[in-house]
Amino acid sequence: MRQRNKPWADEYLQENNHIVISDPKSKKGNWSQLFNNNNPIHVEIGSGKGQFILGMAKQYPEINFIGIELAKSIIVSAVQKIEEENLANVFMLNENAIDVREMFADDEISMIYLNFSDPWPKNRHEKRRLTYGRFLEQYQDILGANGEVILKTDNRGLFEYSVVSFSQNGMNINEINVDLHAIQDETNVMTEYEEKFSTKGQPIYRCKAAFEK
Amino acid sequence: MRQRNKPWADEYLQENNHIVISDPKSKKGNWSQLFNNNNPIHVEIGSGKGQFILGMAKQYPEINFIGIELAKSIIVSAVQKIEEENLANVFMLNENAIDVREMFADDEISMIYLNFSDPWPKNRHEKRRLTYGRFLEQYQDILGANGEVILKTDNRGLFEYSVVSFSQNGMNINEINVDLHAIQDETNVMTEYEEKFSTKGQPIYRCKAAFEK
Repeated sequence: MRQRNKPWADEYLQENNHIVISDPKSKKGNWSQLFNNNNPIHVEIGSGKGQFILGMAKQYPEINFIGIELAKSIIVSAVQKIEEENLANVFMLNENAIDVREMFADDEISMIYLNFSDPWPKNRHEKRRLTYGRFLEQYQDILGANGEVILKTDNRGLFEYSVVSFSQNGMNINEINVDLHAIQDETNVMTEYEEKFSTKGQPIYRCKAAFEK
Repeated sequence: MRQRNKPWADEYLQENNHIVISDPKSKKGNWSQLFNNNNPIHVEIGSGKGQFILGMAKQYPEINFIGIELAKSIIVSAVQKIEEENLANVFMLNENAIDVREMFADDEISMIYLNFSDPWPKNRHEKRRLTYGRFLEQYQDILGANGEVILKTDNRGLFEYSVVSFSQNGMNINEINVDLHAIQDETNVMTEYEEKFSTKGQPIYRCKAAFEK
């Protein structure tokens, strides 16, 4: 996503540390305490401006959501909206998701969303794709029984790579959809990208995969 | 495929029993003898007029091909072309592929092609889809080590169903392609359907899956 420089972002994020949790590694294993309930926790890696995670948080008040986004100038938009809407079931993390096991304990998470992740199309960048084997190993640890990884993308290459990667790394494919907007799925919450690309007639792909636990 | 009645088909198939093998169950385990070599054997279930299997047989003379097609009035077109081209590495079977284990021994086959199979879109017809679990069990038996099932279709529903069915029945997904004609794959041999639908801009889907043996 294009980043506009926002010099006030740092200060804003610190002021809103009831939404943007600082030092999330210290919360590992204790997220339920922070949410103050035992509802399942869903994590989105790469939340952008937060349209998806906010839509989900509003649609599913009985689920807790954590959005991870590295870019300060982008995550502030999500935080502003959460503040405005006064949502209690969503936290944001201004972190690099290089190893989510540092932030979440084994089985602590019920669902991982990868929405319109960077496709890293060059072969030599395969290791950076969020569905590369080493990332899947991390997801396997933090996901509980029946926990799913749900990938949504308009990028054909990333989709094709990811389905194979899921399968080759011991995951079961529970669902694939190669034209998500051809079906009327009222429960589908759109991301900013999805709204933009699907109106252009670009098919949106989705895959749900799970480890056997 | 639309079938024109061809009253001469029966007689024609009998005359050409060097191409259309009668009583294929008696050949179970002995197909290499019939081909007179030990080349790998690839099977296509539902060969239609044979454009795919003929194209493959010409492109890969070091592979043996067996095409199965139930409709007499359609299979005759394939047989006529094989006769004209004088191809020694392809046989046709005028059979119902309800259980391929009756015709092929364990590990006798290296590859199974399912091209533009009937999608049977209604839920209650799931059992008729050639990628339904009970069919996959049969393929597992007749396929040798590293043997693959290769599905090609323009039908979104059948494709999505099949990838999940492969995965849920213990197969690894080795490749998926959700717009086959967007890449320039010179080795892709087109079926009659594929030629027709891809020129209309309809995406063609392909999946390669394998059992661990």
